[in-house]
Order: sequence, then C-alpha cells, then structure tokens
Amino acid sequence: MSAPSAIAPFTGVSALLDDLRREAPEVEVRESSSETAVFAFDAGTAPRRGGPALDGPTVAFPATVGEVQQLVRLAARHDVSVVPRGAGTGLSGGASARADQLVISTERLDRIVEVSPADEVAVVEPGVLNAALNEHLAPFGLFYAPDPASWRISTIGGNIATNAGGLRCAKYGVTRESVLALDVVLADGSLVSVGHRSIKGVTGLDLVSLFVGSEGVLGIVVRATVRIRPLPVARRTVTAFFASTAEGAAGIGAITASRVRPSVIEFLDEPTLDGIDAANASGLRARGAALLLIELDGFGLDEQTAELTTALEAIGARVEIESEADAETLWELRRSGRRLGDGSWFVGGDVAVPKSRIAEVFAGFPAIEARYGVAVSAVSHAGDGNLHPVITLPIPAGADPSVAPAVLHDAADALVRAALAVGGTVSGEHGIGTVKRDLAAEELAERVRVAQLAIKDALDPAGLFNPGKAL
Amino acid sequence: MSAPSAIAPFTGVSALLDDLRREAPEVEVRESSSETAVFAFDAGTAPRRGGPALDGPTVAFPATVGEVQQLVRLAARHDVSVVPRGAGTGLSGGASARADQLVISTERLDRIVEVSPADEVAVVEPGVLNAALNEHLAPFGLFYAPDPASWRISTIGGNIATNAGGLRCAKYGVTRESVLALDVVLADGSLVSVGHRSIKGVTGLDLVSLFVGSEGVLGIVVRATVRIRPLPVARRTVTAFFASTAEGAAGIGAITASRVRPSVIEFLDEPTLDGIDAANASGLRARGAALLLIELDGFGLDEQTAELTTALEAIGARVEIESEADAETLWELRRSGRRLGDGSWFVGGDVAVPKSRIAEVFAGFPAIEARYGVAVSAVSHAGDGNLHPVITLPIPAGADPSVAPAVLHDAADALVRAALAVGGTVSGEHGIGTVKRDLAAEELAERVRVAQLAIKDALDPAGLFNPGKAL
Repeated sequence: MSAPSAIAPFTGVSALLDDLRREAPEVEVRESSSETAVFAFDAGTAPRRGGPALDGPTVAFPATVGEVQQLVRLAARHDVSVVPRGAGTGLSGGASARADQLVISTERLDRIVEVSPADEVAVVEPGVLNAALNEHLAPFGLFYAPDPASWRISTIGGNIATNAGGLRCAKYGVTRESVLALDVVLADGSLVSVGHRSIKGVTGLDLVSLFVGSEGVLGIVVRATVRIRPLPVARRTVTAFFASTAEGAAGIGAITASRVRPSVIEFLDEPTLDGIDAANASGLRARGAALLLIELDGFGLDEQTAELTTALEAIGARVEIESEADAETLWELRRSGRRLGDGSWFVGGDVAVPKSRIAEVFAGFPAIEARYGVAVSAVSHAGDGNLHPVITLPIPAGADPSVAPAVLHDAADALVRAALAVGGTVSGEHGIGTVKRDLAAEELAERVRVAQLAIKDALDPAGLFNPGKAL
Repeated sequence: MSAPSAIAPFTGVSALLDDLRREAPEVEVRESSSETAVFAFDAGTAPRRGGPALDGPTVAFPATVGEVQQLVRLAARHDVSVVPRGAGTGLSGGASARADQLVISTERLDRIVEVSPADEVAVVEPGVLNAALNEHLAPFGLFYAPDPASWRISTIGGNIATNAGGLRCAKYGVTRESVLALDVVLADGSLVSVGHRSIKGVTGLDLVSLFVGSEGVLGIVVRATVRIRPLPVARRTVTAFFASTAEGAAGIGAITASRVRPSVIEFLDEPTLDGIDAANASGLRARGAALLLIELDGFGLDEQTAELTTALEAIGARVEIESEADAETLWELRRSGRRLGDGSWFVGGDVAVPKSRIAEVFAGFPAIEARYGVAVSAVSHAGDGNLHPVITLPIPAGADPSVAPAVLHDAADALVRAALAVGGTVSGEHGIGTVKRDLAAEELAERVRVAQLAIKDALDPAGLFNPGKAL
C-alpha cells in the first residue's frame, strides 16, 4: 500500500499550469488566490461568519471529458493532488481543498445528453443539477428519485460521489439504486465505462457501486446513466400529530407494522416544532407535540390512507389529510422553517440507526442536553432510520459568534456514539469527508479500513485523488 | 498484480487434510473421490447425460464461522485454492471445482439468525434456502424480494455471490438492493463486518456491493443482513395476448409508457407458447401468438388494472384478469412448462438489453435460425430487459444425445453478440463464472478488466478464492 500522498509543493502547481497553458490552452483555469478561497471549503466546512482570509486552490473548469483526462494526467505528472468538485454543497468536507491542490470542477460538464423514456434512463454529465434534471424530466411525466435536501443546488455528480440520500429513500432507494452506468476518469487519465443500460447485468465486480459514494477518491465521474421513473399518478400529504415526542417516535413503528410504505416519512420532534413556530408563527405546536409528516404516492391512495390512519389512530395520533396548499406550506416549513443560526451557535448531525431504535435515540436527548448544557432536537427521515440532530446554544451578549464552544462538538460526538451503541452508523447520507474520519474509525474495524485502503491503492496507487478524504 | 494462482499439487490437499484433522477434527470433510464428483460442477456445467467418471474436489462442510476461517487459513497455508459453494444451482460454472481444490460448502451454515419486522431485516447464514427464508417470513406477513428461478433450491449465499435476479427485479431490485450488511471471511482468514442495519449508511467505500455478485472471488459470505418487506396487500395476474411476437414485444413498451409498474412482466414468444402447449396441452396458442404474463401487486389494483388495460388494448392486445386458479396454472407453465431436452439438444442463454431494444432482439431470431439451422425462442423478464433465449435442434435418430453440435453454441454466441450490439450485456443474471469469460472480455474494455483484477489482487493477493472465475 502506498503512503499517503505527500503535500505537493506549489512548484508542482506552477509547472502543471505551465504545461497546461502549452498543451491545453482552451481549459479554463483560475489560479490559487483569495478569489478561489470559496473552493477551499464545502458547505459543511466553510466558516459561518467571516473567518480568516486565505488563498484557495487552483481550480480548473473542463468542458469536455478529454479535458478532464488531460488535467488528471498533468496533475499526475507534477504530483499535484486532485480534488473533484460538484457544487460544493457537501457537508463533510469531501470537496474541501488546500492551496497546493488542483480542484477539477464539473460545473461546465452540465449537459443532459439523453432522456430515454422507453429505456427509463437519462444520460447526464456530472455537473447537471439534480433540480435541472427533474425539471427537464417533468414534461415527459418522469422523475429522478434521489432527493437530497440540496437537490435545488447540488449536482448529479456530487450526489453520486456522496451516494446522496434524501427524503424518498425508504421507498425509492438512495442514489446507488438509481445509477446504472458510469464513465469515469481514473488516476492514470484513462476513461472507463462501467455498468449497464439495463436494470440487470452481472459482468464481474460491480464497479458502479464502488464508485458511487466513494467521495472522489477513486476517479472522476464524467457521465452517468441514471434510472428514471414515471411520476406517481397521485400524491397526498398526511399529517399525524402526537401528544409527545416519544409517542410520535412510536408512530414510526406503527407505520412499519402496517403494509403502507409512504414515499416520505419525516419525523419532527417537539423542540423542532417549537423552533419552526418561533420563526414562522406557523402554529404547529398547537396541533401536537410531535409530527409525522407523510407523503403517500402511487395507486390506491384512499386504500393507503385508510390503512395508515387505522395504524396511527390506534396509538393515539391525530391524523389528517392536508389540502394541496397546506401540504406545500408544511413541506416548505420542514425544509427551511428552522432558521438556525439566528442568535444561536449550532452544529448539525447525520446518523442512521435501525428503524426500531429511532425512538431510543430521541429518548436519549435529555441526557445529552443535561450533560453538555446544550439544546438537542432532531428531524428524522424515519422510513430509513436517518436522523439529523441539531445541537444549539444561545450566543451570550458580547461573545464572538464565530467561535462556537467545543461543548457543541462534544455533544455531537456523543450523539454519534449513541447511534453506534444501538447498531447505527456515523453517517447516514452526508459521508465521511474530512469531518467524520475519526468517528468512522470508531465504527469500522481496522481490517475493513485496511481493505478499503487496499482498494483505493489498487485504483489510485499514487494517491492522486482527494487524499485525506473518506477513508 | 499477482499471476493467476498456480494449480496446487494434490500434496497440498493431503497436507491440508492432515493439518485439518489435527487442528480442527470436528470439521466435516469429504475427500476427493468419485463420490464428490457432483461438486465438480454447477447446474450450468454438469454433464446432461452421463459424461465421464471423474474424481471431484475435496469438500468441507463447516458448521461455524470459526470453522470457515480455519479452513481458509489452512488452504492458504498449503496453497490449495478455495471454491465457495452454495447449492450449486448456478448456471455459469461459478461453483465448479477441480480435484485439487477445496470446496467450502455453506450447506451447514443454514440458520435464520433473526427476523426483525421492526427493522425490516432478516439476519441469515449463507446456506439458508431462499424458499426457506420466505416460508419463515410469511407468518410475519413479510417477504424477501429477490426471486431467482431457482428460489426453491438455491441459497441466500449463492444468490448474493451471483447477485441473483429473478422475475420481480424491475419493481423490487436485484439481490444487491436487498443486502444491507455482510460478514465475510477474507483470504487471510480474517472476518469482517461491512454495511449497515439501516437502509442508509455511507462510511467509506461500499464493500457490501462489491462482495455482492463477486462470484466467490473476494471472500466467503458467512452471514447476511437482508432487507425484508411487507407482503403486498393484494396480487393479481393479468394476461395480454397478441397476434404476433412482434406485437407482443411492442406491448412491453406500452407498459413502460404507462404509469403502471407491475411486479412481474414475463414475455413469452410464439415458439415458447407452442412448446408449452405441446408439453402440457395447455391451449395458450389458441389465445394468441405471444403473451405478456403480468403480476400487479400493492394498493389500487383496480386502478392499476384499468390503466394497464387501456395501454395494452390500444395496441391490439386481448387483456384478461385471470382467476386465482388460472393464474397459478399460468405461472407454473411459465416456470416449468417447456420440458426442454425431450428429443432435442438445447442451449440456454441469459442476456440483458435496454428495454426499448427487446423487440429488436426477438426480431433477430429468424436470421439466427436461418444462419445456424437451429430453432430460437425466448422468454423475457421484460420489465428489466433480461432475456433467456433457448436454442434447440432435434436429435436425429441414432445420434449421441450427449454430444450437442457446436452450431448450438455458435448460435448462442451470436445471440449474445446481438445483445451487445444493441447496448446490452453478456449476462443479465447468471454471471460470468467459467462459461462466459470470453464473452465478458468482448464486453468489458481491457482497462476495466485491469481495474477488476487490481481489486481482486488487493483483497486476495495470493489468488486463493475461486481462481479462473468471473474476472
């Protein structure tokens, strides 16, 4: 196994740029400067309020697959490590880059190459926004299912790199289940096509699944064939309000025990409802202390609603079918109703646990609040066991808002360990990046890490791609 | 990269057995002899009628994970390569073994360890039969979705090794989509746990997906956590008969263009219907010249049926809802109605193509029949583009039935190339094994094969596991 790639000297970047201007002058490049500082971070690592000025990485914007290959070969020649980047909306530092690295942005690789309703596939370049793909598909009566919260601003390539999750995963699967084939530029600059345009196909090892979620450490995806589906014939939003967070968490199990599989099951606990109401005067808390916000889709909505209602009312829920207008408001409140950061420090989390243990994780919040002197709340994509806790602390008058106390991160780590203790995982959908490498080491046995590193080494022996991330 | 494993001398096996008797006398072993000849083959490579007598491999039947680890360590010590084996129902030679190899059978690792309806998972040992798992789940109102044709007699471990497909894949996914976590014994004898008990989880490279479908070349699965689902509230069988194979193939596209996604769409062409009728006096051909045999499931069956019927009648189909009794008969005829091999040589196939190209593949059969002087027909899991062509030739009086003419295999290869020509793959669900390695080489670029071999080498540097298979 190779040693981790040494930090390439800036002379490497300079020489790379010299060669690039000579050999591929058409490639758009921004040199390292304070102007490229935004490329030093992703959405999870960017400083929230100001932060020190610094020089960002050198950033290239290839417009063709050939340009990506050229950039990778030149970077390898000059021992400059490469950080692939989509829209930079990741939350674990997977796309963060040092000033001595080369960022290859997929921003200009943004063509929707093909939509085939008959094959139920779309072929796209990595820089296509998730939302742009879905806008393009809607007139065909089709959609691309993976829906990370960032779907309006994140790219399909970034979604693939992180195996992005979202709200609809319990029914439609995570990104991996929607990726059929990939074109990938490897660390030697070669271009490979892996996977199949059919749903089935078994020819040797499944390299598609290996690239999906690999956070840019194995190669750069330059084209993807993704599975698309007919838009459901109908959708309906149902709310179930409960008298307490604990009763609401029990409602998740009641849905599992029924035969209804909603497309979305979002669980909002009492402090989350309070927070949304405080920011929006939305009056949710008056309807109950915890909310299961449910979307049903497909055929037989009345039958589905009846079975769901029976299951939830049996444990004391107040169940209502929402009007279209009310549903829209509720989903908007769920997505962005909490205006975090107004007068509080906060740290967000992303764990997943077996579905039956979700209630225990919520039940453990008061102990963490007491121990660390913070406030803890969470929303959960309850259908797939994914939770996003938020830990907050009011900023006292006169304190520097840019310096969050360490206790917030200690509490976040305690929450991750609570998830591990019930058989969960340190990252449900945000990935490891730089932020969760230590925690991943707590989850994964040493032999598993060795195996992952051996695979990385097999495909990228010089450690060119995204060193220090994910593994 | 290591060279392919040299053929270990028999002395290796003898020394292994000596050590095994001393160090682990409790492990059940059958030594190489004519009694173990059945373990030299899988269902795809076994001689159909007699064939030469030969000595089979040495076969071990570990009953615990620890015994599997011991066997792997001893095999590595004595440079005896290991062939993992489930029920041996594979069709591509993946489990075939030479006399100088050690077969590790998972037959005695057959416990259903846990069923958790609340987590929607089952934890099983690899030797559990697919059917046994489903029988066990039925009282809970649950099922395990992957349903290869061999489901009554194949094991979950074998299904995982081949990423088994089946009839319900278009709706419920292939085996990979139902495997959440695995315990695997690696080539150094170590035991690793990979994956998550939750649906979501992104911690480094996805080793679960890498092991699924790897045909035993990377490790031996000794425990699997699989996703289980509620049994559908209702199921209904619908038939659509057409005036010709071509019109029936067009019906596949009509379903795709609708918003109905049946759980099963089986397409049977005219010669298939003739063959079933000849063997069963079933009278299908009198109803039409091609059949889409469809299963709908879930909520809103009447709505689904209405939309499906509209779509299919618009292109001339005769659509009927079948009674439960008739449905059972039809599915039984589909599964085993064609008594192949009665008076004919035959070769079966397994390709997958983009759904929109299925009709073209069927349309190409007459040309292949004319060129090779054979008869070609096929059934297709039409929802996912998978086809199983059958090439037959009557055995003339006096000919040796055990020696099929080469022209059958030439025609089969021509069919595979026809699938490749329309963007398909050489194996939809049976795998590469030994049988399709040459054809896989036609599909996969050299750089992809190099990458696959590098990964094999990273996890199994000595080439201990299943040399000469899959890659």
